[in-house]
Amino acid sequence: MTSAPMPVLVILAGGISRRLWPLADKSFIRFFDEHLFAMQLSRFVKLGYNDIIVIANSENAELIRQDLLQIPNIGKFHVLVQLEPKGMGDALLLLKHLVAESGNRPIYVVQVHDVFDIAAHSDVLNAYASREGVSYLLAKQVQTYFPGGYLIVDSEMRARGIVEKPGSGNEPSNLVTLVAHLHCDPSSLLSTIEEEYGRSEQSSTDDHYERAMTRLMAIHDFRVIPYTGVWCAIKYPWHILDVMDYFLSGISENETRIASTAQVADTARISPYGVVIEEGARIMNGACIVGPSFIGSRAIVGNNALVRGSMIGADSVIGFGSEVARSHIGRNVWFHTNYVGDSVIADNVSFGSGAITANLRLDENRIGSQIGAQKLDTGRTKLGAMVGFGTRVGVNAVVMPGIKVGSDSRVGPCVIVKNDLDDGSVIVVKQEVDIFPNNAK
Amino acid sequence: MTSAPMPVLVILAGGISRRLWPLADKSFIRFFDEHLFAMQLSRFVKLGYNDIIVIANSENAELIRQDLLQIPNIGKFHVLVQLEPKGMGDALLLLKHLVAESGNRPIYVVQVHDVFDIAAHSDVLNAYASREGVSYLLAKQVQTYFPGGYLIVDSEMRARGIVEKPGSGNEPSNLVTLVAHLHCDPSSLLSTIEEEYGRSEQSSTDDHYERAMTRLMAIHDFRVIPYTGVWCAIKYPWHILDVMDYFLSGISENETRIASTAQVADTARISPYGVVIEEGARIMNGACIVGPSFIGSRAIVGNNALVRGSMIGADSVIGFGSEVARSHIGRNVWFHTNYVGDSVIADNVSFGSGAITANLRLDENRIGSQIGAQKLDTGRTKLGAMVGFGTRVGVNAVVMPGIKVGSDSRVGPCVIVKNDLDDGSVIVVKQEVDIFPNNAK
Amino acid sequence: MTSAPMPVLVILAGGISRRLWPLADKSFIRFFDEHLFAMQLSRFVKLGYNDIIVIANSENAELIRQDLLQIPNIGKFHVLVQLEPKGMGDALLLLKHLVAESGNRPIYVVQVHDVFDIAAHSDVLNAYASREGVSYLLAKQVQTYFPGGYLIVDSEMRARGIVEKPGSGNEPSNLVTLVAHLHCDPSSLLSTIEEEYGRSEQSSTDDHYERAMTRLMAIHDFRVIPYTGVWCAIKYPWHILDVMDYFLSGISENETRIASTAQVADTARISPYGVVIEEGARIMNGACIVGPSFIGSRAIVGNNALVRGSMIGADSVIGFGSEVARSHIGRNVWFHTNYVGDSVIADNVSFGSGAITANLRLDENRIGSQIGAQKLDTGRTKLGAMVGFGTRVGVNAVVMPGIKVGSDSRVGPCVIVKNDLDDGSVIVVKQEVDIFPNNAK
Repeated sequence: MTSAPMPVLVILAGGISRRLWPLADKSFIRFFDEHLFAMQLSRFVKLGYNDIIVIANSENAELIRQDLLQIPNIGKFHVLVQLEPKGMGDALLLLKHLVAESGNRPIYVVQVHDVFDIAAHSDVLNAYASREGVSYLLAKQVQTYFPGGYLIVDSEMRARGIVEKPGSGNEPSNLVTLVAHLHCDPSSLLSTIEEEYGRSEQSSTDDHYERAMTRLMAIHDFRVIPYTGVWCAIKYPWHILDVMDYFLSGISENETRIASTAQVADTARISPYGVVIEEGARIMNGACIVGPSFIGSRAIVGNNALVRGSMIGADSVIGFGSEVARSHIGRNVWFHTNYVGDSVIADNVSFGSGAITANLRLDENRIGSQIGAQKLDTGRTKLGAMVGFGTRVGVNAVVMPGIKVGSDSRVGPCVIVKNDLDDGSVIVVKQEVDIFPNNAK
Repeated sequence: MTSAPMPVLVILAGGISRRLWPLADKSFIRFFDEHLFAMQLSRFVKLGYNDIIVIANSENAELIRQDLLQIPNIGKFHVLVQLEPKGMGDALLLLKHLVAESGNRPIYVVQVHDVFDIAAHSDVLNAYASREGVSYLLAKQVQTYFPGGYLIVDSEMRARGIVEKPGSGNEPSNLVTLVAHLHCDPSSLLSTIEEEYGRSEQSSTDDHYERAMTRLMAIHDFRVIPYTGVWCAIKYPWHILDVMDYFLSGISENETRIASTAQVADTARISPYGVVIEEGARIMNGACIVGPSFIGSRAIVGNNALVRGSMIGADSVIGFGSEVARSHIGRNVWFHTNYVGDSVIADNVSFGSGAITANLRLDENRIGSQIGAQKLDTGRTKLGAMVGFGTRVGVNAVVMPGIKVGSDSRVGPCVIVKNDLDDGSVIVVKQEVDIFPNNAK
Repeated sequence: MTSAPMPVLVILAGGISRRLWPLADKSFIRFFDEHLFAMQLSRFVKLGYNDIIVIANSENAELIRQDLLQIPNIGKFHVLVQLEPKGMGDALLLLKHLVAESGNRPIYVVQVHDVFDIAAHSDVLNAYASREGVSYLLAKQVQTYFPGGYLIVDSEMRARGIVEKPGSGNEPSNLVTLVAHLHCDPSSLLSTIEEEYGRSEQSSTDDHYERAMTRLMAIHDFRVIPYTGVWCAIKYPWHILDVMDYFLSGISENETRIASTAQVADTARISPYGVVIEEGARIMNGACIVGPSFIGSRAIVGNNALVRGSMIGADSVIGFGSEVARSHIGRNVWFHTNYVGDSVIADNVSFGSGAITANLRLDENRIGSQIGAQKLDTGRTKLGAMVGFGTRVGVNAVVMPGIKVGSDSRVGPCVIVKNDLDDGSVIVVKQEVDIFPNNAK
């Protein structure tokens, strides 16, 4: 037996980001001004992956390709397009020819929007190096019930099955499956998935991949790799804040780094640790940057503004007297005497003076957010606004906690936005006034 | 005759603070983060009073006792409880047994909510040392008419009677009685008060104490001690600002004192005189504290915030970009980009970003405040809001000048609070909006 | 022939400033805290004009006289009063006796509200020194069509006629007449104007002066002096911003000048170039002044306030946390946590905390302003409010882009001022609220 070959990385980036509205494709959310896709890829390249297959959709494939070309030392890659969002099994079947061509070389299946500690991926590689199993599944060890797929494991940590959302108290283990699956026999896997697609009676669900794995567990050695580190999945827009926090925590103890062409005014103050300020950025007098925070290229933090625990995209202006706290701000965003807290703001958005994102309910209860017909508990007591690309928010307007404002919209002055606002909408307040002579003049 | 014994201090703290709404018991309003009751007591202890009787009510007796136990060198004390608020005469009758037990030792009667210069009390003690009178009454020399009780005095400054609210031009003297009465024969006084209670035809008023004193003036030597210093009585909530100003004036020329565990950031600026910053407080970059001002323990004055002429209670946060001017702020209050001017804010209140206390009428006239069915002239052209315990004020809300907001209430975003709001209320604005497609997108 | 005598300066200052509403007389708009009239006169005195005739109106004649008396080296002057605003020809006829008395001495006719580079006036004087013409007319060389009077010129730059508003593409030249006319034979001019008034059939227009000049062009040598420099005419209130920008550009490269009695706090920051701070002004901690800017005598720029590209009149207060950007602020104006951008604010105005001048449409289109029944395109994409003398704007109120608020008015809290507001008006919002018990308390 030769030494184990480096698996082919299969990164799933073709899912539709409908639930991320008003933000757009998960792959291109930026952290440290870099697309999430490119960040993830860079990490895998550093781990040694040099043969990469991306499963994209027809919308993002071209941008995915561009991103790939710019990743240093990227090696060989293919971008496959899943034309319709028909599930992970369907996506993996696109690999058939490549798997055959490669002589059934092992694959490592991950999703672009799942963020783990780098150690998670090293652990999988190390387990694989042991060559004891046929597949290796990363599994999150949970302390409290989480509505995911729980693994049935034997005493030697071999997976024997998956139970979806068993309900609290009925979990077969404390191990929840994550999508970080290393398969040494992808050919068998794909055949089994194909068989599942052949079973017509189950066509209403799209869990063919999970079903195929469950079947294979009976005959193959599926090793479970327990994981206790961070797992952030971007599904809803507020999850972007969790991923941002995770990445920011990674720089929080680093010495502050200010690019050589950035300008920091005399009375501006920047935390000595945990701040990154990129080329051409300007921090004006009286401004404060409290770490961990990231200030993108050519961004301006205006006089007496405050940024803390946030990422500010390139070319954005955090104008005079604004506070941005724990928020993810896109590129070319303009603020002006605003409070923006616990918010996700897409590119090219601007806020008029005095506009505010309320980020705390008066009753301090957890904040809900409308998803379809349902009000979802976001699990957060602090959550501001989520605002789509190109939207303008007028002076003294208020966006209530957990509200989503669509792209290319306009919020008039003094509007209280209490409900989600569709893309391309205008909302204005109908203010009644009385006008009469000033007798005291 | 032996040398004069130190009188027993009788401090009246049992009155109901109904007119102080939405603030609570006068005794426990804090100045320099200390209860008014404890502050007053400490002053009397320093003057030598070591036998103290407090007349409390059933609500505050326990807290009064706790305060007493913490006053250094407090000596002997009794807390008597007046079960119903039936006037000062009724309160004093509670002393009967203690006066008898003490062998009719002199008493000095004062009220917790009357704040005088310390000299006022020394003057009374000095007059008493002369042993010329039977009772000694402090009297405020007024320049203009004040609706109080005026003393009729003879050429040797002996009181011959009291005229209640005589009307301007009809005053028998320029001496208004204050409650700072030293009685060397309390036993006779109490008997006379009891007789007054026996006269059934006058039972509709509760001025038995005043009537008893008036009767005794005919037979006893009641010496009047004129007083030209400060007199602040806390009756309505805005009076708290007057008392605060008085206490702040006492530190305005002292060198600024910053506790050793307090932190003052590099670009924060603090007046060199008249500021006290307590242990654990933090003054962030760009913040300014203009004296006279007091910053309580562990309070935070956030980036680019301004505090001037104010007292900030312990654990409060004057957040980013807020201004607090000439205001009395309780403990654990949270501000965030607010303007709070000439306001009294109870403990545990929070203001959302952009909420404002308007403190000046557009016509710059004197500000009224509703008391029962009546609009009272507060005598102030600058007066902000008075807000009760635990209330939340939403983002961009406005509280109009002189308005009182009850405790445990919630003011929604953008509400203009024009009328007093009861305890435990929610007020929200009914905003009508138009929503239509953004054709310009 | 003797050497050319210095012409008499005739400055027209009698026009009614109706279109300047809510600002008042053009002559007394202040730049660098000096009346425009006095500034203009000082420039002419420096050029050598020592015999000055001002044509005023009955309202401003007295103030014009006072201004003249205070101009250093003013020489001889007359103030003539045009009783009714009947046009420039009528105004010039007032000169008849003075022209006769002076022996038909040349006159140089200019208007108080036309601001040119000083070079424009030198050019006219230099051309006059050549003695080649009978009249000399300054003319702006335009690149794109401007709706003014275009000169018909011959090959030797002699004017042969004027065509009013020919429409784009029909211009007889690229030279637009300005009011900067030097006439060596005023006597003939005045006679010709008189003749024009004699022609009854044309009495409905008031262009007698232009018609007289056109007639004289046939027999006299009218030399055209092309001019490529700055021309700002104050007609509408937003033009004040253009003139301010012009004057500010004149100091933008000068070293900052801070008067000896002005106070600049420790952490305040002032641009090293282009700022003038007058006597007694105070710049508080954390404030920033970004040049070019002018801060008048005794004005206060409060803690953490920002002034940029603006002129602040004497005794005004730019309070805590306010930003004033590219705005013209009168005397004794009070701001308090406001954003004032691209705005013209008359004397004695005050803004409550959080009041904002919106200065940008959400669609970023050019801003219109109502003039009579017409919405005029101001040509600006950034334009804030224009506010008349003595007006008060309430807390959190918003004045929309291009809106004019009359003098002695009051704007209530939270009003969105969407339409121009007459002088002496009160506008208040009719806010509906719901009040109900706080069940969560």
